[in-house]
Amino acid sequence: MPDEWDIDDAFIITPSGKKICDFKRLNLHVLGYSEAVDKLLSLDELKAHLHTLKDLPNAVPYATSYYERRWGFCIAKNELDTLEAGTYHAVIKSSFNPNGHLRYARIFIPATQKTDETILISTYLCHPQMANNELSGPVVWANLVRFVKSLNTRRYNYEFVITPETIGSICYIHENFSRLKQNVKGGFVLTCIGDEREYGLVLSPDEQRLSDKIALHTIKHLTNKPKIYSFKERGSDERQYNTPALDLGVVALSRSKFGEYKEYHTSLDDLSFISQKGLNGGFLYARNCILNLETNAKFLLNTICEPNLGSRGLIRTLSLGKNHEAHMILRDFLAFCNGKNDALKIAEILGSQLYKLRPIIEVLLKNNLIKEVK
Amino acid sequence: MPDEWDIDDAFIITPSGKKICDFKRLNLHVLGYSEAVDKLLSLDELKAHLHTLKDLPNAVPYATSYYERRWGFCIAKNELDTLEAGTYHAVIKSSFNPNGHLRYARIFIPATQKTDETILISTYLCHPQMANNELSGPVVWANLVRFVKSLNTRRYNYEFVITPETIGSICYIHENFSRLKQNVKGGFVLTCIGDEREYGLVLSPDEQRLSDKIALHTIKHLTNKPKIYSFKERGSDERQYNTPALDLGVVALSRSKFGEYKEYHTSLDDLSFISQKGLNGGFLYARNCILNLETNAKFLLNTICEPNLGSRGLIRTLSLGKNHEAHMILRDFLAFCNGKNDALKIAEILGSQLYKLRPIIEVLLKNNLIKEVK
Amino acid sequence: MPDEWDIDDAFIITPSGKKICDFKRLNLHVLGYSEAVDKLLSLDELKAHLHTLKDLPNAVPYATSYYERRWGFCIAKNELDTLEAGTYHAVIKSSFNPNGHLRYARIFIPATQKTDETILISTYLCHPQMANNELSGPVVWANLVRFVKSLNTRRYNYEFVITPETIGSICYIHENFSRLKQNVKGGFVLTCIGDEREYGLVLSPDEQRLSDKIALHTIKHLTNKPKIYSFKERGSDERQYNTPALDLGVVALSRSKFGEYKEYHTSLDDLSFISQKGLNGGFLYARNCILNLETNAKFLLNTICEPNLGSRGLIRTLSLGKNHEAHMILRDFLAFCNGKNDALKIAEILGSQLYKLRPIIEVLLKNNLIKEVK
Repeated sequence: MPDEWDIDDAFIITPSGKKICDFKRLNLHVLGYSEAVDKLLSLDELKAHLHTLKDLPNAVPYATSYYERRWGFCIAKNELDTLEAGTYHAVIKSSFNPNGHLRYARIFIPATQKTDETILISTYLCHPQMANNELSGPVVWANLVRFVKSLNTRRYNYEFVITPETIGSICYIHENFSRLKQNVKGGFVLTCIGDEREYGLVLSPDEQRLSDKIALHTIKHLTNKPKIYSFKERGSDERQYNTPALDLGVVALSRSKFGEYKEYHTSLDDLSFISQKGLNGGFLYARNCILNLETNAKFLLNTICEPNLGSRGLIRTLSLGKNHEAHMILRDFLAFCNGKNDALKIAEILGSQLYKLRPIIEVLLKNNLIKEVK
Repeated sequence: MPDEWDIDDAFIITPSGKKICDFKRLNLHVLGYSEAVDKLLSLDELKAHLHTLKDLPNAVPYATSYYERRWGFCIAKNELDTLEAGTYHAVIKSSFNPNGHLRYARIFIPATQKTDETILISTYLCHPQMANNELSGPVVWANLVRFVKSLNTRRYNYEFVITPETIGSICYIHENFSRLKQNVKGGFVLTCIGDEREYGLVLSPDEQRLSDKIALHTIKHLTNKPKIYSFKERGSDERQYNTPALDLGVVALSRSKFGEYKEYHTSLDDLSFISQKGLNGGFLYARNCILNLETNAKFLLNTICEPNLGSRGLIRTLSLGKNHEAHMILRDFLAFCNGKNDALKIAEILGSQLYKLRPIIEVLLKNNLIKEVK
Repeated sequence: MPDEWDIDDAFIITPSGKKICDFKRLNLHVLGYSEAVDKLLSLDELKAHLHTLKDLPNAVPYATSYYERRWGFCIAKNELDTLEAGTYHAVIKSSFNPNGHLRYARIFIPATQKTDETILISTYLCHPQMANNELSGPVVWANLVRFVKSLNTRRYNYEFVITPETIGSICYIHENFSRLKQNVKGGFVLTCIGDEREYGLVLSPDEQRLSDKIALHTIKHLTNKPKIYSFKERGSDERQYNTPALDLGVVALSRSKFGEYKEYHTSLDDLSFISQKGLNGGFLYARNCILNLETNAKFLLNTICEPNLGSRGLIRTLSLGKNHEAHMILRDFLAFCNGKNDALKIAEILGSQLYKLRPIIEVLLKNNLIKEVK
């Protein structure tokens, strides 16, 4: 566990007295985990500590030292090119605290009926000065907390977690390993989920878990061109939740995924990159995953043959020419209620999004035509 | 169980004294399960009881009440449009019998060697005034009974059943549930099987049963463009035989399937819609399913390595240049006789219809090169 | 077991005294397993004993009697057409020996650590007068023996076998049945592997064995258009090694496979048909199969979450903008080390040939980040 890094201020004074790389204006200007410095240097000496991006000359890169002691600043290539010769004054007021703390938050929302089965919803908070990666995650996450609390019934417990990426989820896992391993039946990492580009997801390593099936079903009803990535394209905390020892079968939900857009990990990933509409779409995506999860169960037909739906007032009793399209979905749902198919599979067969079948399932349960089975 | 419906006559007398909707001429004119009526009505009052099809103005629709008490007539849209104003006399001479009977027929043809394993062949007889759906079914079914009886050997028992659709198969199932559940290894429902259009089938819900495999194999050798429907497109008695509690893995065999042709469930589905050639094709289809079923078994090679077929006189002993194509099928069949593949799978590998391999299998058994295994 | 066939000489003297079909010049001229003859015949009588190929008029066919007593010569169609009328003298000096021997060779190269697990590498030596089928096999086989001996470590024992095709492998199997059945985990038959045409393979009957997976992986990295044949296209000793009773899951490796080139089993399959380059390619193909086999194992990550590779000096500690492509393969490999995936599957996910990951696996083992599991 590396020492905690604290920083108060950082800047460079140019030979002409101008303050540049001002941490207080844009904290990306400091290389993350930089040690303290207060030094006069020539331009050439300074340049060895300046990080820039050739491909995006207007962008300040986001850079971090993991966790070697060094110091540095990040600066746009275009600005770097204007720097005059002379003596620069580099100042970083930082410190390392071997007794520091790593903070993370956890919100547990219990199921309606007592159960251990838990869904994990995770995002990260460590560099929110970038908008899509990462501010969008906490925004959607917070709205999702509110949504899950508002549900009348919950089949699962929900554990909402927000940590610094990687190091935070590793700590969280170490402190909660057995409980997570035993109870978590699936989950979602929310990342880069606030822009208006295409919906995407990163599958779990085995690609066949509950979360994989739910997320694939959900995204298909949001868009015709979903971006489906294998775990080879992982990048956020799904890396930790899916390590072999833990193996939670967690899926990452995103719009423009990490590494797939040029503004990623630079100052260009700012508030103009995300939007209300983009965030709403991200929320809808995550919300539908939860609704589909909550609707999913296995049902078994209670009658030996097809039940008479007409005598129960569930379909018209007058058959004329063709089948009555409107009521076929009721019959179709029943036809596959064999106690082995889950409702997700039936929804796939019927071409409907799962949670939209909820009224039908409720009518059938109420009429005692099906029962839920484990 | 609804009351039995009996009907003697039904008709309407127009203001000018003409008899229309005459049950004795075309029994589709009466709404099925109509209660008795003997009433004078205005044209407008009458129209509330007339059923017609906008899309097919020359067709009398087939309509039934399940099983609510009402009355009505079915009439072609074009005829309806010619009706004059005035007083009509509607007569239906029907009655309901709470002590009625539901009749079905069952023919059991035993296997050559005693076994419980049974194949179910079912069709329905409830509205034979329509030709493809349904007269074709009983015609092919009856010929199939004759064919199965004529077989020298039968691996399975065959249970041939003919009932009124839906209500009849439900009764039959209720009276035979345990026996069917225990003994039936597969089966076929014959429906809409007398026209000359493309061959089709409706798979069982799990799509992997013996009947599914046999029917898919058979249809592929009949046509290059088979119409394969999932159980979502079910419509005849396969609905009952495949309900979760019974789950017989039954497949529906058809040519122009129910609901897939515009004449379906109207007076236009008459004898001109089917033909000798169409019925012969339907019979061939069902017959080949049975022949393929009867040929299917698992075989195991009796020798450690490849047997010497030349010394047994089964292939030429002179090898010249290329392999002798003609005898390769014998060797190919043996190459896959591992006691795990069934003959159906081997036939698929070899690109041959299964029942056409029967002479080869018989030669190999006779020469003690293979043995049948369970 | 047929009698051993020995032959000293064979030829025909034409009416004009010319010696044709001279065994000493080209031994294909004699029908294999011909009985002795010393006879004067008319041209027409002789023709009943002459074998020729209409499609390849310049080729002397390769023909054999299995194992019926007859005699014959093979001759090019073009030469046959020039034969004059008159009396011919046909001479074959051959004999059958009921106390003969069938010879085969076996080289056993043990694994580095004692194990029973063995890989079988087989080829055949019975008609080496043909170059691709069959001289190429023994040439590549012999080089492979040298290569396997030179390996520093061997995970498996290697059993190299060379026999007369079919009859030889049958004898070898009968003498070694239990040992082969118990110990052989896979293997390769080398056949027709010396020309420069496309790489090919014949899968084992179940197509999913270790050798199938290794050969499919290997060939994909050699060529974009591999020729993958099912076991239906078998033809060499894989026929015997894969019979149901033995079922070793053996794959045949080839370039222009038996039966797929017109020169096959004729005098045109001579040294001009193969080349140094072709043989080198065949050797590379077989060698890479072995290297991939030797690299394959299951590994399990030793840490609970992702290990810190930076602190171990395995990747750079400075993260700037994008991920460091160069080191991603290390992380990617670890991400899938769940003790269930074998390294072959991981290599497929990563798009790398398996044996090229060996340095990475060795670094990870050395740093105690993964362990091999059974």
